[in-house]
This record gives sequence, structure tokens and C-alpha cells, in this order.
Amino acid sequence: MRYTVGVDLGGTAVKMALFTLSGDMTDYWTIPTDRTNNGENILTDIARSVSVKLTLMGIDKKQVTSLGIGIPGAMKRGVVDKCINLGWGSVNVVSELSTLCGLKVYADNDANVAALGEYKAGFNESYKSILMITLGTGVGGGLIEEGRIISGHTGYGGEIGHMRVRYDETEVCKCGKCGCLEQYASATGIRRLALKYLSESDTKSALRLYADDITCKDVFDEAIKGDEIALKSVDTSMNILGHALANICHVFNPEAVIIGGGVAKSGDFLIEKIKPAFDKGMIYIGGQTSLAPARLGEQAGVYGAYHLATSH
Amino acid sequence: MRYTVGVDLGGTAVKMALFTLSGDMTDYWTIPTDRTNNGENILTDIARSVSVKLTLMGIDKKQVTSLGIGIPGAMKRGVVDKCINLGWGSVNVVSELSTLCGLKVYADNDANVAALGEYKAGFNESYKSILMITLGTGVGGGLIEEGRIISGHTGYGGEIGHMRVRYDETEVCKCGKCGCLEQYASATGIRRLALKYLSESDTKSALRLYADDITCKDVFDEAIKGDEIALKSVDTSMNILGHALANICHVFNPEAVIIGGGVAKSGDFLIEKIKPAFDKGMIYIGGQTSLAPARLGEQAGVYGAYHLATSH
Repeated sequence: MRYTVGVDLGGTAVKMALFTLSGDMTDYWTIPTDRTNNGENILTDIARSVSVKLTLMGIDKKQVTSLGIGIPGAMKRGVVDKCINLGWGSVNVVSELSTLCGLKVYADNDANVAALGEYKAGFNESYKSILMITLGTGVGGGLIEEGRIISGHTGYGGEIGHMRVRYDETEVCKCGKCGCLEQYASATGIRRLALKYLSESDTKSALRLYADDITCKDVFDEAIKGDEIALKSVDTSMNILGHALANICHVFNPEAVIIGGGVAKSGDFLIEKIKPAFDKGMIYIGGQTSLAPARLGEQAGVYGAYHLATSH
Repeated sequence: MRYTVGVDLGGTAVKMALFTLSGDMTDYWTIPTDRTNNGENILTDIARSVSVKLTLMGIDKKQVTSLGIGIPGAMKRGVVDKCINLGWGSVNVVSELSTLCGLKVYADNDANVAALGEYKAGFNESYKSILMITLGTGVGGGLIEEGRIISGHTGYGGEIGHMRVRYDETEVCKCGKCGCLEQYASATGIRRLALKYLSESDTKSALRLYADDITCKDVFDEAIKGDEIALKSVDTSMNILGHALANICHVFNPEAVIIGGGVAKSGDFLIEKIKPAFDKGMIYIGGQTSLAPARLGEQAGVYGAYHLATSH
């Protein structure tokens, strides 16, 4: 039996999985991400964890064909420029990790890799091209066309979080601009809108009980129950997102837009909230782009990493 | 000697050219577009014109390898869905034209084909990926990545004219939405802005002499001379375009954005006007996307059609 390793490197944890060459996941595990000393131990930890896992499972390294990995930064030719979440500057992930673990390594941006996972394993190639967006702390995204990642000139293909969607915003985004998509459609953005609406009015709201500890999940939970402020926050956020996604479809015109990340756990409720603005924005190019919640949850990255490593 | 025919089918004229297989243009001519009877004669006229040209030049049809053509509508698999400018409904261009002219035919959307022309012949493949936009009566566009047209699921890849860029617009675009890029950045849009600013103030302006006959070219000419209203029109238009192009770079992240079409004849003046908003919008993904005026002018389409026909 031959195997491939899929790795999804995040700022808090590294998700790892072992796959048979036909794509069946035989094991899934996580290790913490050690960000001390500018994350200098991260790749060593990954290599060691793979090695230990293979030994425990009685698999010889010669049976492992390759390792795929998603990295939280813009990548070009195996090198990541800067990963703020890991404390990294420029790191040649492919060269360093293959030396450390003795395997052929394939690496790409984590959002691109997750998109590849949903394209291949989540939706079983039923769409020829997709934009997958990830709504989490930020808003990430990846473009896949006929099984290929479109990573772009500097690796920012599909990185739609800092598209400017509002020109009257006065609050500054972490990127230095005002009115970025991430300020409205990320978990952080939805929480921001709720706190703003709570402070602007005296309307009764269950959210007031949470005070500053409010999370995006709280806002969605209360919106589903009908809370006025929570609903206004979700409606504003998803209206802006729906228009932005329609705009993006005018550029890349994918067959489907897949919505993933923590916020997307609300599934159909979320899609229903996005759809009116999305459909309105699509008038000219027609309503032929599907909108669907992601299917692989937090495992999209490792599935994508497996496909990245095996589709070469 | 072997040849390839390049055709750029527009609403007013059909531009045609004969190329040697190595890409040298040996002849360039145009015929009027006959839009009578829902444009039913257009493809016959093209086939006849090719035939006559070959006879006049003493070229046997066996020496012609193929014909490429750009069509003003969204295309998928050789079929165009609808061409309002030609009066066409659904037309299988590839099948009909190849029957009529006895040549192997390759067809794609005109903006995509023009983009391919600039990518290959205008810029000699010095950029790995480009977005080319055409500022004319409308705003069209095409995406090229490593020599391939990214035409999208329904053929609207790069068709950015109806991206919504303003949410406070009250005037309705021809597509039925309000605030589309085309309402500001097309020749029609720039003229619209100038007429609006003229009617809203009593500021002295050379444009008042033109009255309703004002054209986009007049607005640019007067802006270059320093006319206040003309400058305000150009500045507003190009500010909106600059931000929109930066947003698009967050989706597709091309190495260069090429600006073509009638409006682009203003060259460096135009680029200077677009650049501040473009650079501001690019903060997060870096200023590594070039902005350049197109090089082939009205011949981009026929060059692209030649490359479409020969790159298979």
C-alpha cells in the first residue's frame, strides 16, 4: 500500500492526515503550532510528527509518495513571502520541509489548497470552476479552474478579503484601507457590526447580555431566533458579501461559489441571506453560478493538500 | 507559404487580416457589418470576403490552415448565446462559418480575443497573466493566464463592465442595475458624468460650447487643457476605474492590467489618472501589477484571432 500526507498549517494548530493513493483518509490528527522564536520549529515539528505517525502505523517511509501542505500566506514557486500568523518572513517551504522529512513536497496557499479540497473531494468535480471563500477571522479565498489552482502573479489569486466594497467606511481595516470586505463578512466583521448597532441604539437585544464577549456565532444564533440587532448585523454583512461575490463572478465567472469557514456552519441560513444581493448583482451575466456551503469543514485543507500532492 | 485568417466581428464593421503562419500580417481590410434581417448575412459576407481576398492575392484555399474570429457576445464551445449588437440569437459560429468558408474555425468572445492579441503580439508574452479591459461604448474585458483565455463558466470571464462599483447611484444602467462600472468608465459613462456636472453648476467650461454633441474625446481633450468640469469628469471616472481594477486584482491577481479601447488613446494621461486609486487599492497585495496602455489599437482583435487559430 502507498500513501500521501496532507498537511494544513494554521496559526493555532497543524492539521495532518494520511491518505491512501486512491484518496481514502486513513488517519487524521493535529499538533499545536509552535509560534515561539518566529515559528522556527514549525516545519521540524511537522516532519517529526509525520515520522512518528508512520512508525506507529508500521508504514515504511518508502511507501509514502509525497506530502502536500497549505500555508497561511501568499506563495510563489514553493516560497512564502511572509506569514504574519506564524511569525515567518520569507521561507522556502518546499525545500526546507522536503529536506526535513525526506519526501517530495508540494505547497500552496492554505485558502487555495482548501478550495482544491472542496473542488475535488467535497464536490467530486461536479463543477468545472469554483471560487471558494473562507469566512473566519479574516476572509480568504481560492480559485480553481478545471482542477488547477489559479494562484495569480504574486500568489494573491482569490484573496478577496481586502477588496474594497464600501467607500463611506471610516473605520480603518488592518490593511490600512477603509471598507474592505473583511470588515463586514468575516467573523470579526460580523461581531464588529453587531457591537456598532448595539452602541448606536437602545433597541432591546439578547446580544446585550453577552456584552463585549459577543462572538460571531452568538450573532448568528440570535439572528436565527429573530433578534432584531443580530438580524440587522447578519443582513448587512451578507448583503455586502452577496454583492461582492456577484462582482467577483463578473471577473472569474465560476460555475459555483462555495462558502466555507466557521461562519459557514450556519449553512442554508447563510446562503439564504447571501442570495438576494448575489442574484441582483448577477442580472447581466445570468443566474447560472451556484452558491453552496462547503462540505468538508475543517478537513478541506488536508484533503486539498492530498490532491495538491497527487495531481502533479 | 501557409496562411491564417484573423477576423474581429463588430457591430459596425468586420475587421479582417491575413497572417503568415509565423504571425506577420500580410493584409488588413474591413467590410461593413450587415445587421439587416437579424444579421443573417454576416457570416456569409465574411466567408465571401475571405474567398475574394484569397483569389485576388493568388492564394489557394489549401494554403490557409485556419480562421480565428472574435464575436461580440458570451461564447461557450463555439456557440454564442446572444449578440444584441448583431441582432443574433443563439448562433453556432464555429459550425456555420466553417461550413461557409471551408476552413477550420476557432471562435471566442471579442474582448477575450483582443486580450489574447495584446498578450501575444502587443506585449510579446512579457507578462505571464493579464487582464485587458476595453473602454469604448461599454466596458469589456478578457483574462489571459499563461497564454490561455479564462473564459469562465458561461463565457463572461473578464466581462467587468457590470460589476457594481457605486451603491448610491440612482441612474439605471442598461443592464437594469445601478452603479455599474460601465456607467462611469466607458466613453458613454464619461460623457454622462460631464453632462451631469455641467447641469449641476454654473462653472465656466469649454465643454458648454459642445452642448449635447459632446463626446468622450472632447472631455479628454479639454481635461488635458485643464478645463475644470472636464477634469472633474475624468478624475471621477478614473478614480472609480482605478479602485475597480485593484479589486479585480484581488480576484485574479494578474501581472499586468492593459487598458485598451477608444478612451485609452489618451495613453499616459489616462494611466496617470487611474494610478493613484489603483495603487491605494492594492496596498494589501502589493504594487506588483503593471498598468499599461494597449499597443495594438483597433488591430488587437485580428491579432488575437490569429493566435486563437494557431495556438491549438
